[in-house]
Amino acid sequence: MSITVVGSIAYDTVKTPFGERERMLGGAAVHFALAASFFGEVRVVGPVGEDFGEAELETISRRGVDVSDVERVSGGKTFFWRGEYGWDLNSRETLDTQLGVFEDFQPKLSESSRSSDVLFLANIQPDLQREVRAQLPDARFVALDSMNMWIEDARDSLVQAIGSVDCVILNDAELRQLTGKPNLVSAAREVLSWEPSPGARRGPSVIVAKQGEYGAALVTRESFFALPAYPLETVIDPTGAGDTFAGGLVGYIAAHPDQELSDELLRRAMAHATVLASFNVEEFGTERIERLTGGEIVARMEELRAVTQFSGAPLQLRG
Amino acid sequence: MSITVVGSIAYDTVKTPFGERERMLGGAAVHFALAASFFGEVRVVGPVGEDFGEAELETISRRGVDVSDVERVSGGKTFFWRGEYGWDLNSRETLDTQLGVFEDFQPKLSESSRSSDVLFLANIQPDLQREVRAQLPDARFVALDSMNMWIEDARDSLVQAIGSVDCVILNDAELRQLTGKPNLVSAAREVLSWEPSPGARRGPSVIVAKQGEYGAALVTRESFFALPAYPLETVIDPTGAGDTFAGGLVGYIAAHPDQELSDELLRRAMAHATVLASFNVEEFGTERIERLTGGEIVARMEELRAVTQFSGAPLQLRG
Repeated sequence: MSITVVGSIAYDTVKTPFGERERMLGGAAVHFALAASFFGEVRVVGPVGEDFGEAELETISRRGVDVSDVERVSGGKTFFWRGEYGWDLNSRETLDTQLGVFEDFQPKLSESSRSSDVLFLANIQPDLQREVRAQLPDARFVALDSMNMWIEDARDSLVQAIGSVDCVILNDAELRQLTGKPNLVSAAREVLSWEPSPGARRGPSVIVAKQGEYGAALVTRESFFALPAYPLETVIDPTGAGDTFAGGLVGYIAAHPDQELSDELLRRAMAHATVLASFNVEEFGTERIERLTGGEIVARMEELRAVTQFSGAPLQLRG
Repeated sequence: MSITVVGSIAYDTVKTPFGERERMLGGAAVHFALAASFFGEVRVVGPVGEDFGEAELETISRRGVDVSDVERVSGGKTFFWRGEYGWDLNSRETLDTQLGVFEDFQPKLSESSRSSDVLFLANIQPDLQREVRAQLPDARFVALDSMNMWIEDARDSLVQAIGSVDCVILNDAELRQLTGKPNLVSAAREVLSWEPSPGARRGPSVIVAKQGEYGAALVTRESFFALPAYPLETVIDPTGAGDTFAGGLVGYIAAHPDQELSDELLRRAMAHATVLASFNVEEFGTERIERLTGGEIVARMEELRAVTQFSGAPLQLRG
């Protein structure tokens, strides 16, 4: 029931058509952890600088997240990202990236972090993902995220990393880029056909393609599932939506340790992921998720079902 | 149970990464009519030139479509479009458009076409859409499509046309452009708030946003519904997918003359639209729909349900 996540802890300065925030708490591991904390105990592994505040650490740990593997690098600066979103929030421009302590990050996992039965490798250099993966050889479920930069600059290592996990969570454009296949289903099936990496007991069996405002798709060897995003009239800041989605997905699976990775389980995980992500984008950064309650998640799950269900009434067609 | 459609009948020369076709049968009214013909009798109103072949006319009429209002303009040339699709089929470039007989098109509706109880105004100049709309004052259900060009060049007339129909079917980008609202739900609600046009008994109550490979969304005053596209590994040519979608949607509603426009009915219509469009893109132009059977539609409806449904198991969340 416990989940280890390795990834960035950051300060984000974000401007959207609806406002801006300076140096707010962000980073993939943070967004993931806050979302996953609704489902199990989360252990965060990642570096921060001397500039990282106690208040931010307190925000992460408030929901029971274990921050003892958050490494404070003396003399270092916390990862910083500055970006601006366009009119419809579907495009964004990175204006500044300062890796800071992330540049020389070497994940150090405590015994406790190594004992989790579920692992999420957030978007970091694939060599590091593989090192961490190797430290949890018995993990029941391991998922990975990545990005276009690693697909371009470290493809071989990324392919090895993918060959050692159960679940790959990427944007649909990244999945196309990774495989060179324009068709989403074909691209996913391509990754599913890859051999496990040397030393890995199994290769990926679950591919999740995130599609931003349109939702997400799930492809396994046997099945396909697609789910629209939860409809919102108020979308303020998409930053962290993908990691929040992953936190809901991986968290839900972590909360069901006795169940096979059945289609039914995976689809419910996708729905929880969708719901968590929908809350994330309603406000800047972690603001909305920080005060989210389990009851709100359950209620929106019902609403998500309501806006996606249809009945199949028989119809006599001509011809 | 009968449906009148006004729009283009065309020759399309199309190149996609998977092949090309010269001067194949196309046009919005054709794609719409072939799809809608599974649900009721369709009457096509539109012009062709002297170059239009008997074989193409026979293709349209084979499924019981009434082509007696297809006007053959002596000395004229049939509307011609040439375009090429990019790598992932999501972008396309128009290389040539020859309006031909479409340039001076003045729709002439026979008594039979005016007696239909359902009307689809395919993408043509909004003044013409309004003229045709006025000729079927008692139609039970009227839907309209349009495009970016008319939103830019004939916005006032288009807004008047929209104010006289029940259902607006647009691409999501067009809906945003029309309303100036980047948020899809807000954009749809904006159109729903427009007053009926002078002389119109009612304004729009159903907004459908087509989202290409991602599916489509339905917004009414009371409700929201989103449906992913049917997953396909083989997508050959998206030309006509939107009009085929509209044919499935409007056709399904036409086939249920005794039912209110309930949420349930509209959702089933969306599902049939999605299924019809999925067949359309599997081959070039009208090739796939020409030999489609009702049984195939029913089977794929079941599959669409299978890939979009999830159950809502209760879960005890932390916090």
